[in-house]
Amino acid sequence: MTLETSVDRAEAVRKPSLDPLFQLLGGDLERVNRLIVERMQSSAGLIPELAGHIVASGGKRLRPMLTLGCARLCGYDGARHIPLAAAVEFIHTATLLHDDVVDASELRRGRDTANAVWGNKPAILVGDFLFSRSFELMVADGSLRILEILSRASSIIAEGEVLQLMTQNDTGTTEAAYLEVIRAKTAELFAAASRIGAVLAERPPREEDALDRFGRNLGIAFQLVDDMLDFSACQTELGKSIGDDFRDGKVTLPILLAFGRGDEEERTFWRRTLEAMDQQPGDLEYAVDLVHRRGALAETLTRARASAAEAVEALAIFADGAVRQALVEAASFATERSS
Amino acid sequence: MTLETSVDRAEAVRKPSLDPLFQLLGGDLERVNRLIVERMQSSAGLIPELAGHIVASGGKRLRPMLTLGCARLCGYDGARHIPLAAAVEFIHTATLLHDDVVDASELRRGRDTANAVWGNKPAILVGDFLFSRSFELMVADGSLRILEILSRASSIIAEGEVLQLMTQNDTGTTEAAYLEVIRAKTAELFAAASRIGAVLAERPPREEDALDRFGRNLGIAFQLVDDMLDFSACQTELGKSIGDDFRDGKVTLPILLAFGRGDEEERTFWRRTLEAMDQQPGDLEYAVDLVHRRGALAETLTRARASAAEAVEALAIFADGAVRQALVEAASFATERSS
Repeated sequence: MTLETSVDRAEAVRKPSLDPLFQLLGGDLERVNRLIVERMQSSAGLIPELAGHIVASGGKRLRPMLTLGCARLCGYDGARHIPLAAAVEFIHTATLLHDDVVDASELRRGRDTANAVWGNKPAILVGDFLFSRSFELMVADGSLRILEILSRASSIIAEGEVLQLMTQNDTGTTEAAYLEVIRAKTAELFAAASRIGAVLAERPPREEDALDRFGRNLGIAFQLVDDMLDFSACQTELGKSIGDDFRDGKVTLPILLAFGRGDEEERTFWRRTLEAMDQQPGDLEYAVDLVHRRGALAETLTRARASAAEAVEALAIFADGAVRQALVEAASFATERSS
Repeated sequence: MTLETSVDRAEAVRKPSLDPLFQLLGGDLERVNRLIVERMQSSAGLIPELAGHIVASGGKRLRPMLTLGCARLCGYDGARHIPLAAAVEFIHTATLLHDDVVDASELRRGRDTANAVWGNKPAILVGDFLFSRSFELMVADGSLRILEILSRASSIIAEGEVLQLMTQNDTGTTEAAYLEVIRAKTAELFAAASRIGAVLAERPPREEDALDRFGRNLGIAFQLVDDMLDFSACQTELGKSIGDDFRDGKVTLPILLAFGRGDEEERTFWRRTLEAMDQQPGDLEYAVDLVHRRGALAETLTRARASAAEAVEALAIFADGAVRQALVEAASFATERSS
């Protein structure tokens, strides 16, 4: 049975989901969650209060699941994947806190953002705290190789966030620049979280690289679909405000494609709403209409599926089994989810 | 000759300064500065632009100087103190960038802050980048012991910043709470920067602890004087806006003391200006008058000098010589400076 037919079979039965991964790794994930709660404690009471809000707000825990899943795929049977998965989630959480301040977001996963509840100042500082804690966890683990992978990923994420800021409000952003942004701000941590699974199991470079490729392409697929859903999910399903990217003037792939395929009148619309940031009632609805009509959402999904297929392809060198199947299904989930 | 008489002699000749330390370590510091410029490069052009602004803005480089000086004091003759001093400065710079966003400061060291020039978003994200870079430098150095010291210090700094936020606008803040804030937000990095000098030279725990005590007390003295100067320096000398803490509603030691010693009318004034944040023209001048009149600035300086003396005392176990003398003078400088 090829990887593809196994995916097809799973899809014939039910929508792809993260459930198999959670079923396999649920015990590990519970230990990760307990450690996260333990390590966000502080005598500064605002820290556990605010960190608890975002940590408990129902994220998918996709990144730590990659570390747990990839470690298991490589046959790792120790306990170091627990604190390292927690470290990965702390890096991600710190990034979310700062992102929401930078974007002045008010909703995330259907709940008020930390900055909306407590203001920007604590959100910035608690982000810094979680980021430091993440390094403390890695240092306690003691692998310089893993510290190298994750500290490099952290730098690249920050670079990606800055690049994103630089392409904001610029309809002249190229697809290459957009891809550089999502590779850095999203795919790099997916890649690092996956790669360290092989490092933990002391697998050869070929397997490390395969897991990096798996995580990186999964991350790209995931972000492409996120950017698509910002124009197509309904607010309650996505759990964050719809049209956030549009309102922030973020030039994502759906917009880039619609802009490129649009006539002069449409381009004038995009320039007014995203560059001049002159947005009127009805503009978001018209933008949604345009990205649909110009096939920009369909094309974004096609590209996401191609990345997901490359992610699945990268797993081919590993032995088939429940863990590999669950990771393959996670790649399907990344593109077929509706929220 | 005791440490004290050598300080007295130096003071008789001229005002204590950091010059002897710079003269001894100037070559090393130049290498640190070059490495800082090199490691803040990025394909995201906004990063070197913004980081260059704050890095070049004439800070005292006190923290990296502590690493360089303490390493030298311990007889270290390798090259690892250079990247580690750069890492220490990056942690500090990241903290400054986020501090200025949190406090909405417009001036630092007499220049516009990064957030004033580029806005809050890049200041937050470039802070994250520098923080990550700092860990990359430490990881490249390869000492888990030093990574442990500095990652722990980073967490404690973030906790201190959150604690500071929690005591803001609260005239009921205790001296103990204030001291906890400055120990965490300032003294911890001074302590860590100094301690790693002994770690580099592979000196016994006793010397590590002595340098920690030196740095910690120097940091406390430095912060106490900073808080005093916010009410007494003139704007051009201090190079940052005077009355910043008052305007932010920060309850520092001069205010705590003046509040404690004040009559009911004065306490009403402090509550109105710092808790209700109802500040009128002339209020800062009156606040300055009160902290003078109630002896709060003099008392703050007395405490700073006591901390500086404890810092000097901690150096007593090291052999006398030019480096120790320069570090002793740095402690005098911390309390006798006018900016």
